[in-house]
Amino acid sequence: MGKPLFSRIAFLGIGLINSSLARAVKEHGLAEITVATSRTPATREKAAALGIVDLVADDPASAVAGADLVVIGAPIGAYAELARSIAPHLREGTIVTDVGSVKSVVTRCLAEALPPSVHLVPGHPIAGTENSGPESGFAELFQGRWTILTPPAGTDPHSTAKVRALWEKVGATVEVMDPAHHDQVLAITSHLPHLIAYTIVGTATDLEEHLKQEVIKFSASGFRDFTRIAASDPVMWRDIFLNNQDAVLDVLQRFTEDLTALQRAIRRGEGQTLEDLFTRTRAIRRGVVDAKQA
Amino acid sequence: MGKPLFSRIAFLGIGLINSSLARAVKEHGLAEITVATSRTPATREKAAALGIVDLVADDPASAVAGADLVVIGAPIGAYAELARSIAPHLREGTIVTDVGSVKSVVTRCLAEALPPSVHLVPGHPIAGTENSGPESGFAELFQGRWTILTPPAGTDPHSTAKVRALWEKVGATVEVMDPAHHDQVLAITSHLPHLIAYTIVGTATDLEEHLKQEVIKFSASGFRDFTRIAASDPVMWRDIFLNNQDAVLDVLQRFTEDLTALQRAIRRGEGQTLEDLFTRTRAIRRGVVDAKQA
Repeated sequence: MGKPLFSRIAFLGIGLINSSLARAVKEHGLAEITVATSRTPATREKAAALGIVDLVADDPASAVAGADLVVIGAPIGAYAELARSIAPHLREGTIVTDVGSVKSVVTRCLAEALPPSVHLVPGHPIAGTENSGPESGFAELFQGRWTILTPPAGTDPHSTAKVRALWEKVGATVEVMDPAHHDQVLAITSHLPHLIAYTIVGTATDLEEHLKQEVIKFSASGFRDFTRIAASDPVMWRDIFLNNQDAVLDVLQRFTEDLTALQRAIRRGEGQTLEDLFTRTRAIRRGVVDAKQA
Repeated sequence: MGKPLFSRIAFLGIGLINSSLARAVKEHGLAEITVATSRTPATREKAAALGIVDLVADDPASAVAGADLVVIGAPIGAYAELARSIAPHLREGTIVTDVGSVKSVVTRCLAEALPPSVHLVPGHPIAGTENSGPESGFAELFQGRWTILTPPAGTDPHSTAKVRALWEKVGATVEVMDPAHHDQVLAITSHLPHLIAYTIVGTATDLEEHLKQEVIKFSASGFRDFTRIAASDPVMWRDIFLNNQDAVLDVLQRFTEDLTALQRAIRRGEGQTLEDLFTRTRAIRRGVVDAKQA
């Protein structure tokens, strides 16, 4: 086996995604040493007990000391403070990446806070489950999935290539994209679906107790898929909506118009309108299956 | 082995649900003989080739001749005509049930069209997949799932008990419910989720081609769960919405109000409102998991 891809990888935050990546890094021998930290003491203890990384640091500054790759895996609202706290401790030439679900705000905020001597290559692995915490991660999470990288204009191509290599070695396929375009695509594929799932499950929680119990009991008829999505990490998702406001509000507007049209068709008993739509949507499912994302 | 529960079961329609039930009936020896029919000649041929039932009949009238149990598994819009066409051919004391997803309209429509000498026990197994057609069914579909029965007031309890026994023997747990109450619960757990999934996938189909391809490519981030739901049978779902109009429009109204409130919170950057809701919805997921419906 040759020299590992990185000598020291620091994971800031060790939740579902970062703990999965840390596990995969160990499994594939992609770093000489791995270190993680978390704002929450209990999470740091869990990460240490699980042996996901070689070292657990008490704070971000000591975690990044000597690292040639830093992977931020924290709620987006914590990025600015995190970046400021690590900035003085980063070695020249260190690559900083992240795994956040919104890229325009993140790319801008990190570029502002980090010194010009580091290489910024923001990233987003399109993978996950509804579970959170270091105990939920697993090394195979990224296999056959996409990772999108959004390096700002002028980023050192060698750094982008190294981050790409990391993701490819843990099983992902990498695509480089403009951050704003990423946010527009993800607003449709991820943020709106989550918003809607949260809403419908919320609507059900407001029902009177007896009806609510029956909704849970008979959830296998469609509702349970929404409850799975709506069980995702609350703080992470709060920050996604606050930081991809424009794209989410735009796609939400289109969705609401389409839903209103459908509501009108139901009220008027327009069966053909319903059948036509329901037939069109089947074709999209075939596309998803053909693209091996099902 | 004792005498089977029924001597002759006739399946009117042999799609996902009825073909699964027919397979389970064979597997558990619940009928001396099974017969199926379908409006579509190709479906009849498939059912015969697959050997799901003992006999395939050309039309409903000949299928029900001599049957002591008739199971209607057709789009709800076809019920009235179907009931009229079989009425003169039903033996006295035959039990007629169905597997449709709406119960008020169905119970009323069947009660009107069928002769008073037959026993009507409408039913709804809360089980399914996004696939349709006789080739998609499997005998284990109902194991650990619920089946709701909605016998009208005055139905012979012995007939209800026999239909209950049938579902229990194929692995389901049975609950008896008022049809209107069934329709209200299912409007939330099933009809609204499907309507929303159809809408969001429809919104995506209207995007310009390049963006649409990327939505499919990156669907693993939430969207793909909606495409699975939105791949369900179009005619079946058209009829569900047309026949559970009031309950669906009522719950849709609540959902839209809740979604508008969330939209407002995003626009105003009200993080606490979002986090509070996202935390509440996690509890519902735990309820679903505890109820073993996940």
